[in-house]
Amino acid sequence: MRTDGLADNEFNMTEGTQKDPLVLFMPSGKRGRFPVGTPVLEAARKLGVYVESVCGGRATCGRCQVVVQEGNFAKHKIVSSNDHITARGPKEERYDRVRGLPEGRRLSCSAEILGDLVIDVPQDTVVNAQVVRKAATDRVIERNSAVQLCYVEIEEPDMHKPLGDLDRLKLMIEQDWGFKDLLIAPHLIPQVQGILRKGNWGVTAAIHRDMDSSRPFIVALYPGLKNEAYGIACDIGSTTIAMHLVSLLSGRIVGSTGTSNPQIRFGEDLMSRVSYVMMNPDGREAMTIAVREAINGLIGKVCEEGGVDRTDILDMVFVANPIMHHLFLGIDPTELGMAPFALAVSGALQYWAHDIDIQVNRGARVYLLPCIAGHVGADAAGATLSEGPYRQDKMMLLVDVGTNAEIMLGNRARVVAASSPTGPAFEGAEISSGQRAAPGAIERVRIDPVTLEPKYRVIGVDQWSDEDGFEEAAASVGVTGICGSAIIEVVAEMYLSGIISEDGVVDGAMAATSHRIIATGRTFSYLLRDGEQRITVTQNDVRAIQLAKAALYAGIKLLMEKQGVEKVDQIRFAGAFGSFIDPKYAMVLGLIPDCDLTEVKAVGNAAGTGALMALLNRDHRREIEKQVSKIEKIETALEPHFQQLFIDAMAMPNKVDAFPELAKVVTLPERKVVTSGGGDEGGGRRRRRDRG
Amino acid sequence: MRTDGLADNEFNMTEGTQKDPLVLFMPSGKRGRFPVGTPVLEAARKLGVYVESVCGGRATCGRCQVVVQEGNFAKHKIVSSNDHITARGPKEERYDRVRGLPEGRRLSCSAEILGDLVIDVPQDTVVNAQVVRKAATDRVIERNSAVQLCYVEIEEPDMHKPLGDLDRLKLMIEQDWGFKDLLIAPHLIPQVQGILRKGNWGVTAAIHRDMDSSRPFIVALYPGLKNEAYGIACDIGSTTIAMHLVSLLSGRIVGSTGTSNPQIRFGEDLMSRVSYVMMNPDGREAMTIAVREAINGLIGKVCEEGGVDRTDILDMVFVANPIMHHLFLGIDPTELGMAPFALAVSGALQYWAHDIDIQVNRGARVYLLPCIAGHVGADAAGATLSEGPYRQDKMMLLVDVGTNAEIMLGNRARVVAASSPTGPAFEGAEISSGQRAAPGAIERVRIDPVTLEPKYRVIGVDQWSDEDGFEEAAASVGVTGICGSAIIEVVAEMYLSGIISEDGVVDGAMAATSHRIIATGRTFSYLLRDGEQRITVTQNDVRAIQLAKAALYAGIKLLMEKQGVEKVDQIRFAGAFGSFIDPKYAMVLGLIPDCDLTEVKAVGNAAGTGALMALLNRDHRREIEKQVSKIEKIETALEPHFQQLFIDAMAMPNKVDAFPELAKVVTLPERKVVTSGGGDEGGGRRRRRDRG
Repeated sequence: MRTDGLADNEFNMTEGTQKDPLVLFMPSGKRGRFPVGTPVLEAARKLGVYVESVCGGRATCGRCQVVVQEGNFAKHKIVSSNDHITARGPKEERYDRVRGLPEGRRLSCSAEILGDLVIDVPQDTVVNAQVVRKAATDRVIERNSAVQLCYVEIEEPDMHKPLGDLDRLKLMIEQDWGFKDLLIAPHLIPQVQGILRKGNWGVTAAIHRDMDSSRPFIVALYPGLKNEAYGIACDIGSTTIAMHLVSLLSGRIVGSTGTSNPQIRFGEDLMSRVSYVMMNPDGREAMTIAVREAINGLIGKVCEEGGVDRTDILDMVFVANPIMHHLFLGIDPTELGMAPFALAVSGALQYWAHDIDIQVNRGARVYLLPCIAGHVGADAAGATLSEGPYRQDKMMLLVDVGTNAEIMLGNRARVVAASSPTGPAFEGAEISSGQRAAPGAIERVRIDPVTLEPKYRVIGVDQWSDEDGFEEAAASVGVTGICGSAIIEVVAEMYLSGIISEDGVVDGAMAATSHRIIATGRTFSYLLRDGEQRITVTQNDVRAIQLAKAALYAGIKLLMEKQGVEKVDQIRFAGAFGSFIDPKYAMVLGLIPDCDLTEVKAVGNAAGTGALMALLNRDHRREIEKQVSKIEKIETALEPHFQQLFIDAMAMPNKVDAFPELAKVVTLPERKVVTSGGGDEGGGRRRRRDRG
Repeated sequence: MRTDGLADNEFNMTEGTQKDPLVLFMPSGKRGRFPVGTPVLEAARKLGVYVESVCGGRATCGRCQVVVQEGNFAKHKIVSSNDHITARGPKEERYDRVRGLPEGRRLSCSAEILGDLVIDVPQDTVVNAQVVRKAATDRVIERNSAVQLCYVEIEEPDMHKPLGDLDRLKLMIEQDWGFKDLLIAPHLIPQVQGILRKGNWGVTAAIHRDMDSSRPFIVALYPGLKNEAYGIACDIGSTTIAMHLVSLLSGRIVGSTGTSNPQIRFGEDLMSRVSYVMMNPDGREAMTIAVREAINGLIGKVCEEGGVDRTDILDMVFVANPIMHHLFLGIDPTELGMAPFALAVSGALQYWAHDIDIQVNRGARVYLLPCIAGHVGADAAGATLSEGPYRQDKMMLLVDVGTNAEIMLGNRARVVAASSPTGPAFEGAEISSGQRAAPGAIERVRIDPVTLEPKYRVIGVDQWSDEDGFEEAAASVGVTGICGSAIIEVVAEMYLSGIISEDGVVDGAMAATSHRIIATGRTFSYLLRDGEQRITVTQNDVRAIQLAKAALYAGIKLLMEKQGVEKVDQIRFAGAFGSFIDPKYAMVLGLIPDCDLTEVKAVGNAAGTGALMALLNRDHRREIEKQVSKIEKIETALEPHFQQLFIDAMAMPNKVDAFPELAKVVTLPERKVVTSGGGDEGGGRRRRRDRG
């Protein structure tokens, strides 16, 4: 621990003597002393502050822009002023004339230190981008991308020194940029001479610094100065493929898009796709082609959106669940469809994009995050990287709900992970009126606990169902079903209004007093919407949600037992499901354990955010590789205790002592004594009203 | 220097104590002491003696066979006996039953040391293989190939340990064979699970240990035990492509073949092929496809010869002159056609064979030796590796004559290299009666110095021309011209018999006394064969040979000046030309400097031999890469002195003091005073007869 009130990373070995000016770089907080006349870029380099530069200090690329902060930074004992830096010189003036240099911006390769300075290195914020119901969160990712653009000017060939053109290029890159033992993508070898001559012996090499060989690699080569390179971060979900296109030099997201996973035509959920492979000799290949084509299509779309040529994409990071991961890579996922759920490969992987048919720059690289286990994939690794339970002391529960729920629980000391077989009920499948989130789907539900009358909202309609103009608007889109998030809400509201017991039984006795409770065979249903297309919540629907929530909750409880904790400090819901459900209802139903509701957050497509982090900063790749190797995977199927936890989790939470945080925001029904279980028992019970 | 009479490599750090048995391995001479009971294989490993083993000591692969030498090896103070090793155990008996173990052979993984031993590690000799007039010399190459086959048995997947199948395979290879940070060829990733299951969790991984990444790489994977892998060494000559197929495990050459380079249809010599590229937009591609197809065809042929499946080829080494090198790799050679003769790349290169369209195993690798300069290619590097001037103290002259002569001169201290523009005369081009070495070509010539009558041999005819039955036999093949080697002989014989002066002028005065000297325009010719198809050696032919030999000799002299030597200790003629000329005649004509004729040797396709060495022992790759970086390239075109050396070299050698070694074997004509130069002066000279 430091005693001077600075964090460890705010200090760095000082260069020069105590008489030299002190320079502090923000936001990294690194600082050091440098002799008068030192270029700001050189000072940044010496401190390990990441300032981009392509032209190597020639003041032509404009990538090394910084801003001088003026003022008295008493905390750091620095008075910073524009007088403490050289005035704009001829190089900066020339750059300003040619390409424009905004007021206040300086080229750090040309501006020299004259006195104490606080220098701001602009970081392009990764903006919040909505991607087909998956969103990257607001976040600043410090850049240290795998690809660096390096401009060099090489000597012309000389008969006295018969070294090849490529060999001289490598030597010059080593000399100017310090990259030793450079390799080059084979497809570039025939192009080297032409590019060197076209650039009149000045070329920009794109150096990939994160090859699995650990040697720097020339992956692209351009005549003259090339000032931009792009990357792709992509999450291949079973249902949706989401993608960001990012500038590798500024970190700016220039396009985000998504599309349905075309593999859906082979099977709605993961296991039906595995079955398809097992039943069809060409099934694996067809699905591999389908997903790669979809990704190539998305790249085209996102490039169009960003005005980017797809050949300017040099690096890519993918996350996916294990089955999507395997199918994307052309690996038969059959082993993942049955115990022991053997992954073909679990570690992080690298490819040439070309080798897996991704059409971007011929030298582009692909990085896939590691998989944690057979049911906890690279997407879970991405979410873990994004939310970083291992970076904090608080005990974080990170849940990504899909057909399987991937659950991570832990903190700095230890992270455990499990996959729980929730089935597709949360996604609206196996629900009688369930449907995808699309216009016409009910997305919000409230039930009056006295009258049992519902009100609801429909996607594509502005009004609630009890507001003026609703029916007219609803008629134009058609009210067709209930989407996943509303299923949670309606069942939770049915529970809170006493329509179902804590055991999930629809109270048939209410049929006598409310037309909303209707008999359907030997069980009862709740009539959410009457009319031409009746929308009901049946006893079976409630059972499906109960089973799903019990699976999730049992998985969470198992991990809490493994961690030896009775309460979690934070809950993070990743994925589309998490983004649209109300955490309160999730807790009412008992999907998640009790937790301070202000600490329960939806984090959108955390897997995609993790991919973005690994794209923009290669250190994050090493970070998640290391973490994944440490995460303890708990296999629920092998835990004898899991079955009991599952049975226990079938009931709704209703004890204030077990859910004190929840009890602060809703009134839970008291526990009722149920004479016998089963969905066919509805009559003979007293209805309790706890809310008025 | 050692004082015990052993070379440095005959000694190694002893293991164990002085009481432990002493084990000496031959032919490496490495020795050490090991406790009784140590398996011989383990002893070899500890001493760094290369003994192959695929099965990892399971006594199933049979690759680790050794022979115990019996006797008193007084020089090494060892009495070796079969009593000093355990008797054949059940494992060896089983191997003998299943696959056969020759008498005297032991499996070193099973045989244990009981007392002092001299162990012979059998080395398959690289045999002398005739390859379309290019021959690999007899030579034992110590094996240390880039590819190692490693059998492992891995644990079945386990839900408690969710590591992927590939990841567990890597761990087991690391554990059993010591390879860390293993990478895998991407195309294998989808195959891993199937291969592991087919092999019932026992697989053989082919590990490539010479990837440019410096990390060991799984390039092929086989279910169960795989006991053999092959490599290709190939020399891509302008005229001929020659190839060896070799077992990477035993070093045995299982096939050798060659074919004409199909690029000949685009241009006979190198420069005409460069011109073709410059004139035809698709020329480069057409020639690249042609040479790759020819190589693929040759691989099929050599595999058929050896009874080998081409997918068992895992490693390949290529040498070629710079223009062939570039065309093979798809690089436009135009820059090599004009000053400054810039190579696109000079360093050693590695590829996936697949990336350059070579059809062998999908994971096979290709290694290309480095080029020395724009006219001194990877073939010259191969010849240098083969003959190794840098490995000795003697001053070696290494000459590879083609359209250009590539010349290396040096020893341990320093090697210099040059290319000299000899033109195609030595190959029979530009010679009026010149032709390729084929049936019907005159290949040997003698001229009677008194009568001036010739006798000669013709390819395809057993008799000399003055022997009975010659004309009958000759009539059946037809005598059509003079091949390259005979051109040298006939001009040398013309000089020795006084028909031409030391300045190369055909003595027209002789026409008066011999019908063999005939006037052709203003100059004279020698009539070698009369009849339907007259074969003559014209004044222009002599001039062409003179120019070629002057270029070669001037290049050699330049290098001798650079080295500061007046005499070379050894001369090595590489290539087809060198294999068929008589060194004596080469010296008579002054192609090469004076040298003890017993030290002048033709070494056949030394470039190909170098490729073979680099294939069988990866240390040779590092060796030649290091040497090439040290070789000093002399550009004759930039040497002001070269022109004078060239003019001086036009005359034939005739001074005994300059050619004392030559004078021991032939009587050189004395120097005559020539009144004026030029081919049109034949008369008015006295003919001197020095031989009778």
